[in-house]
Amino acid sequence: MTEHDPGGHLDPTKPQALEGITVVDFTHVLAGPTCTRMLADAGARVIKIERPGIGDDTRQMGPFADDGSSEYYRLANVGKESIALNLKDADDMALVRSMIKHADVVVENFRPGVMAHLGLAPDDLVADHPRLIVCSISGFGQYGPMHQESAYDTVIQALAGIMDATGWPDGPATRVGTSISDITAGIMGYCGILTALVARDRTGRGTTVDIAMLDSTFSLMEHGLMDALGPRVRPTRLGNRHPFMYPFDTFECSDRPIAIAVGNDHLFELMCGAMGLTHLPEDTRFATNVDRCANHTDLKTAMEDVLRTDTGEAWRGRLIEAGVPVGIVLNVDDTRKLDQIAVRGMIKNVGGFDVPGTPLKFGTWDSLGATIPSPELDDCGDMLRTEFAPRPDA
Amino acid sequence: MTEHDPGGHLDPTKPQALEGITVVDFTHVLAGPTCTRMLADAGARVIKIERPGIGDDTRQMGPFADDGSSEYYRLANVGKESIALNLKDADDMALVRSMIKHADVVVENFRPGVMAHLGLAPDDLVADHPRLIVCSISGFGQYGPMHQESAYDTVIQALAGIMDATGWPDGPATRVGTSISDITAGIMGYCGILTALVARDRTGRGTTVDIAMLDSTFSLMEHGLMDALGPRVRPTRLGNRHPFMYPFDTFECSDRPIAIAVGNDHLFELMCGAMGLTHLPEDTRFATNVDRCANHTDLKTAMEDVLRTDTGEAWRGRLIEAGVPVGIVLNVDDTRKLDQIAVRGMIKNVGGFDVPGTPLKFGTWDSLGATIPSPELDDCGDMLRTEFAPRPDA
Repeated sequence: MTEHDPGGHLDPTKPQALEGITVVDFTHVLAGPTCTRMLADAGARVIKIERPGIGDDTRQMGPFADDGSSEYYRLANVGKESIALNLKDADDMALVRSMIKHADVVVENFRPGVMAHLGLAPDDLVADHPRLIVCSISGFGQYGPMHQESAYDTVIQALAGIMDATGWPDGPATRVGTSISDITAGIMGYCGILTALVARDRTGRGTTVDIAMLDSTFSLMEHGLMDALGPRVRPTRLGNRHPFMYPFDTFECSDRPIAIAVGNDHLFELMCGAMGLTHLPEDTRFATNVDRCANHTDLKTAMEDVLRTDTGEAWRGRLIEAGVPVGIVLNVDDTRKLDQIAVRGMIKNVGGFDVPGTPLKFGTWDSLGATIPSPELDDCGDMLRTEFAPRPDA
Repeated sequence: MTEHDPGGHLDPTKPQALEGITVVDFTHVLAGPTCTRMLADAGARVIKIERPGIGDDTRQMGPFADDGSSEYYRLANVGKESIALNLKDADDMALVRSMIKHADVVVENFRPGVMAHLGLAPDDLVADHPRLIVCSISGFGQYGPMHQESAYDTVIQALAGIMDATGWPDGPATRVGTSISDITAGIMGYCGILTALVARDRTGRGTTVDIAMLDSTFSLMEHGLMDALGPRVRPTRLGNRHPFMYPFDTFECSDRPIAIAVGNDHLFELMCGAMGLTHLPEDTRFATNVDRCANHTDLKTAMEDVLRTDTGEAWRGRLIEAGVPVGIVLNVDDTRKLDQIAVRGMIKNVGGFDVPGTPLKFGTWDSLGATIPSPELDDCGDMLRTEFAPRPDA
């Protein structure tokens, strides 16, 4: 516990929340590995099964660090143990079955049906091991008219409505600039598995968990979906402004944009004071929030005329001083260097590389997350082959 | 269990995973209520404390349904019990303390310090009730140099780097068209609480949980952050295209855009076949994925020249037939009507209104989620006052 970490979140001597939980991880690329990385960050033991010779596809995907290692693979696989296994080989499958027998959780993100084809159908695994939790992550889920369609992040972003909701009224539907559908599905996989672990501790019963990228991304939808469900209005793109508060938008300064979030008349007066625009609250176009929303283009122009006279950082200082919610629009390369990110342990050094931390900060439990590097292919293979060697009678 | 729901996910006779868990909910607006709605959807009892007379601010926020009820409030509060309490009144606070004494989980999203001011500091609550889990959701977390700054979704999207990553190379940084920072923080609150419940079941120990919107949104960052951490390249906006695969983008048809995701040469040949562009794989500009990425503008033009001759729906049919990953860019008003969304229970009717379902689908547990409507203000007040009446000696 330090001045900068009063909750002692990053104290490495604290126990981890999921210590003793064992996960057999069949996942690859991004959605599944995001889920199992969260499990590793919370202290579970994650055994990652990879293809001999090649491993997870992302080992060959960029971007690459100076030493040639894949940053993609690293980001998604910190804290795991790797074993290379051929799922068409009888001996390797016997080892897989032995590991599953000793596991609490199995996670996979094959296309629906592949696990059954391997003789590892999730329902059968839970039937054979009644305390087991088997989580499947896929594009559309394990059933339904679209369940066999190919799903990649961009396709799901398109179908879920988030792309159509993002961008400007006179511009095109815009992809969220991160693989939000993969990552959200991974996070929802974590939610499902932890929910199933709580239920198992109380009842002794395991379960399958069926997570779809489409369901997960759809569950992020908010104002546009409210418009569609309530007043039955078809939503449109709004650019960066809030649907019913203004000024609540981004604004250009001399060097870069800043976000200002003014939700009531009092904040509007404070903002106008800080910007030397004290006449604006008396302007009938801007007197109330309803007026400001109706005349948002005029107000944005009036504000940017002033904001363009100085830098975003300078305006941020004045607005913070005045108590107005404000934030500079940062490139993630600057976000990662924020003191706030550092003191929260949201970037940590593992094996010589900076990797993202975990957003789950506990008072009682270690919240630094996994501290072992992403594995070399089969780095734990020998150890795991010995530990889980199938019994002769099995 | 039906043909359309082979896992029996929506079977309302199944038990709920979090049955018996009691949550005292001090949250308001969006991030906190998203967390407690997930708890309600998984079967926890959620007691929502609201201000007398006014209730949660979102009760007065649009959009509104025909009967004048707030769709915003409904979407975030399905499945909860409401009680109106004045947190400055001694009798009401005695009731609050009695409820907390009987609860498993407390959730709040006040600004850091407000709970302590109310005499309910999270650390103290856990000290007094060692099995209790107290989750705080805030903009920046409970400590650090920015922890007292005001945070709204747009401000956090700006700071976290997701806005800068979204949009076109020659256009402005673009807000994700849903309150992704609020909602992700709510989901991470759920992750933290469930992790803490598993740890409690195994150790008997409760904990504080400290969730920040900034940490949560930052943890969604993927390719741009990899660029910054690995090759130390400052990422730029890419519009809708994939950083290192092409064609993996959106394309205009005669009526609307579609997303096509082609990650290898075989899929490229299939796509070209379906589009009558069989000469393209032999064009040196497009022979390999590296070539296609280098010449993505030319390839997009060649593809759109053909795609604009027919509708998105027609092209979707041909490309699906050919085995090419494709999705129409849908408005969320169309997404909600997809058969796939219906069979997954991702829209359900509760109290006469359509509301979103839960993406957590369990084989063993009910996965329909909460089926009681969002509450009228203080609708369970009398019942809760009786049930949790403080003992005279307390």
